Amino acid sequence: MTATSLHRPVAAEAIGSFFLFAVVVGSGIMAESLSGGNVAVALLGNTLATGAILFVLITIFGPISGAHFNPAVTLVMWLRKDVPASGALFFLMAQLAGGIAGVLAAHFMFDQPLWQLSEKIRSGQGQWLSEGIATFGLILTILGSLRQRPDWVAPAVALYITAGYWFTSSTSFANPAITLARALSNSFAGIAPANVAAFMITQFSGALLAWMLARWLFAEKTD
Amino acid sequence: MTATSLHRPVAAEAIGSFFLFAVVVGSGIMAESLSGGNVAVALLGNTLATGAILFVLITIFGPISGAHFNPAVTLVMWLRKDVPASGALFFLMAQLAGGIAGVLAAHFMFDQPLWQLSEKIRSGQGQWLSEGIATFGLILTILGSLRQRPDWVAPAVALYITAGYWFTSSTSFANPAITLARALSNSFAGIAPANVAAFMITQFSGALLAWMLARWLFAEKTD
Amino acid sequence: MTATSLHRPVAAEAIGSFFLFAVVVGSGIMAESLSGGNVAVALLGNTLATGAILFVLITIFGPISGAHFNPAVTLVMWLRKDVPASGALFFLMAQLAGGIAGVLAAHFMFDQPLWQLSEKIRSGQGQWLSEGIATFGLILTILGSLRQRPDWVAPAVALYITAGYWFTSSTSFANPAITLARALSNSFAGIAPANVAAFMITQFSGALLAWMLARWLFAEKTD
Amino acid sequence: MTATSLHRPVAAEAIGSFFLFAVVVGSGIMAESLSGGNVAVALLGNTLATGAILFVLITIFGPISGAHFNPAVTLVMWLRKDVPASGALFFLMAQLAGGIAGVLAAHFMFDQPLWQLSEKIRSGQGQWLSEGIATFGLILTILGSLRQRPDWVAPAVALYITAGYWFTSSTSFANPAITLARALSNSFAGIAPANVAAFMITQFSGALLAWMLARWLFAEKTD
Repeated sequence: MTATSLHRPVAAEAIGSFFLFAVVVGSGIMAESLSGGNVAVALLGNTLATGAILFVLITIFGPISGAHFNPAVTLVMWLRKDVPASGALFFLMAQLAGGIAGVLAAHFMFDQPLWQLSEKIRSGQGQWLSEGIATFGLILTILGSLRQRPDWVAPAVALYITAGYWFTSSTSFANPAITLARALSNSFAGIAPANVAAFMITQFSGALLAWMLARWLFAEKTD
Repeated sequence: MTATSLHRPVAAEAIGSFFLFAVVVGSGIMAESLSGGNVAVALLGNTLATGAILFVLITIFGPISGAHFNPAVTLVMWLRKDVPASGALFFLMAQLAGGIAGVLAAHFMFDQPLWQLSEKIRSGQGQWLSEGIATFGLILTILGSLRQRPDWVAPAVALYITAGYWFTSSTSFANPAITLARALSNSFAGIAPANVAAFMITQFSGALLAWMLARWLFAEKTD
Repeated sequence: MTATSLHRPVAAEAIGSFFLFAVVVGSGIMAESLSGGNVAVALLGNTLATGAILFVLITIFGPISGAHFNPAVTLVMWLRKDVPASGALFFLMAQLAGGIAGVLAAHFMFDQPLWQLSEKIRSGQGQWLSEGIATFGLILTILGSLRQRPDWVAPAVALYITAGYWFTSSTSFANPAITLARALSNSFAGIAPANVAAFMITQFSGALLAWMLARWLFAEKTD
Repeated sequence: MTATSLHRPVAAEAIGSFFLFAVVVGSGIMAESLSGGNVAVALLGNTLATGAILFVLITIFGPISGAHFNPAVTLVMWLRKDVPASGALFFLMAQLAGGIAGVLAAHFMFDQPLWQLSEKIRSGQGQWLSEGIATFGLILTILGSLRQRPDWVAPAVALYITAGYWFTSSTSFANPAITLARALSNSFAGIAPANVAAFMITQFSGALLAWMLARWLFAEKTD
């Protein structure tokens, strides 16, 4: 990647993160406001929307930037030398800037104050393990499908997160940038700022463990 | 396209719009009447049906007409010179005629008065931005998947609208013809006639912006 | 097809109809009993299960028998000379025998009396038009996807019925054999025996109309 | 398979079973706790998560181990000589060890006691027939899609289980290892230890019947 060739990939990361984060937060607001207090129904709507947009964004932006939208993914791709360090840095900035813009857009669309701070406590060993497992599984899904079935990365990641919303007590943020951005939304999808750092630590830890496992497990195409 | 060669494409636009609009309105009536007041459950049914029929209609009509069913899509395809001006005009008429027939059929199936006017207010800056973003994302999804993965346009569009129903406060009409037709249904899916014009303006604006962005972003196949 | 070569196709029709009808009725019983009176939630479960099993059955039995499981489909395939008259007759018997066995199995699994008669009234012009449109769309979906994208018949049909359950007031039986078999289940999915004939008439009418339209509309592969 | 070449397949079975069982139990806990007593809504969440993770795990581990995660599948694959006896034994141990670890992880994530015994009675002829039919259909789905459409095993199995959760009164465990592991979770997904053996018997019986049928039905590729 040269500096010029980074323009499109960085734009793809920013626009993709804008839509992904807008969907996570916006569908959370929509689902919560319509569900009449049945949180499982709200989570169904939130899950459906998030899985659906992941399929779309990875399909259209995957060939341009790899469709990370996630610093933990970018870290692993940098370790694999799929992205140079400078590219990784620009990706990170694009993910945060685009993603936070997406959160603000969601607030604007639902007539809420643009800037908010979440008061939703998400903490404790159970949730930390959740984020570690969630991100471990996400990286395994990405590296596994890239190896075994590269044309199915989009449905694999979309469906992994679909499952993740339900089998982890934290609803699988699995993404340090989205964790930070969701601290800026006092909604269904929010997380209190004080709880952000611990989530990030277990997310990056899970990602690194998955990368190491995948180096052995998916070393050779086996079919 | 010659005049003769337009017969099948125009029929595909009319029949496809008939089914699409009948599903949007019909599943809205069904969902609302069964959901016992839980609007999130109603929206789940409405979403599932709309996404499912989009997959079907784009799969079977895409190779014939492009499966627009949407004047904003037809406008962009005309700007791209994929459809001649005369074709675009016939498409528009087919979308409106077929689509309105679909709304009437939905009313008939559910034993409702055929002709109705919606009283559902859908207005305000939040909803206008919603329609702009929704249509922007729809065009980006179409042009992006056409470029990167043309055999996946059907699932990409179906899943984009699936997400759209949840992450925008307007539930992503993203289609000027359907906006007009839904003004003729005083149901879950309706929109008051007075609110139609503003929706259309932001829809076309979002579509044009997406077209301009896509010219740069998807200019070259990148994988 | 020789007499011998019919063994596997007829078995595929019987086994496929067994599973399809068991799923339609069984998931209806399950959904109704768990949904606490929220019929939209029950219909979501019924829809999800029916769409899912259709994908599976068409994928594994399609290459053997065409995966009709439906006399209206068999009629159209006979008109297209894809199935000989004798084959069509055996298919019909297999669909009815296998399908009714599936309904009985569903009753047994849920500890219900094996033989039942439905008391659920499904009648009126709205429902009749529903069945006509539903079957028209089903045949169009099958013939359209066979022409444009033969490897996607399974998801197209599965998703068409997914939409059908929601946009028609009759919940899209769209199948004369299943209509008869559902008269034998006094459950969520049932239909009173007196209402069966009218459903069948509009189902076959819709199928024939779709066949005629498809001969022109899908005459030539257009992409 | 040599002893060395078993390392990766056995690891794939263990890790896949870990995630599969964690999702079945974890999403059951999540769904039950959020659903406000509407069991159909809880089952929707449980179904969505289970189907989604099956798609992912079969996609990424299928080329390594065949992605059994199920002793009934391993038995059939051993009968088909796709796996040697020693491999089958290691697979069984990996499925149990990985799967039980997944159940414990789910308990930890949701702040529950690690070791539990289910008190949920799942017994009676209806449920036994359910498990027989469920496993019969699962094996038919696997062998059928392997024969007709090997690149679609993942969606076929995921959607078969999606339907299975709804059309059988037992919610389709269809897996002796998961039956045992779910006895260790006193949650939505649990089963009382005393009911485990009968489930296993009908599961293995259904699997063997399906294997025999498939030898005839799918003997030759027919398209």
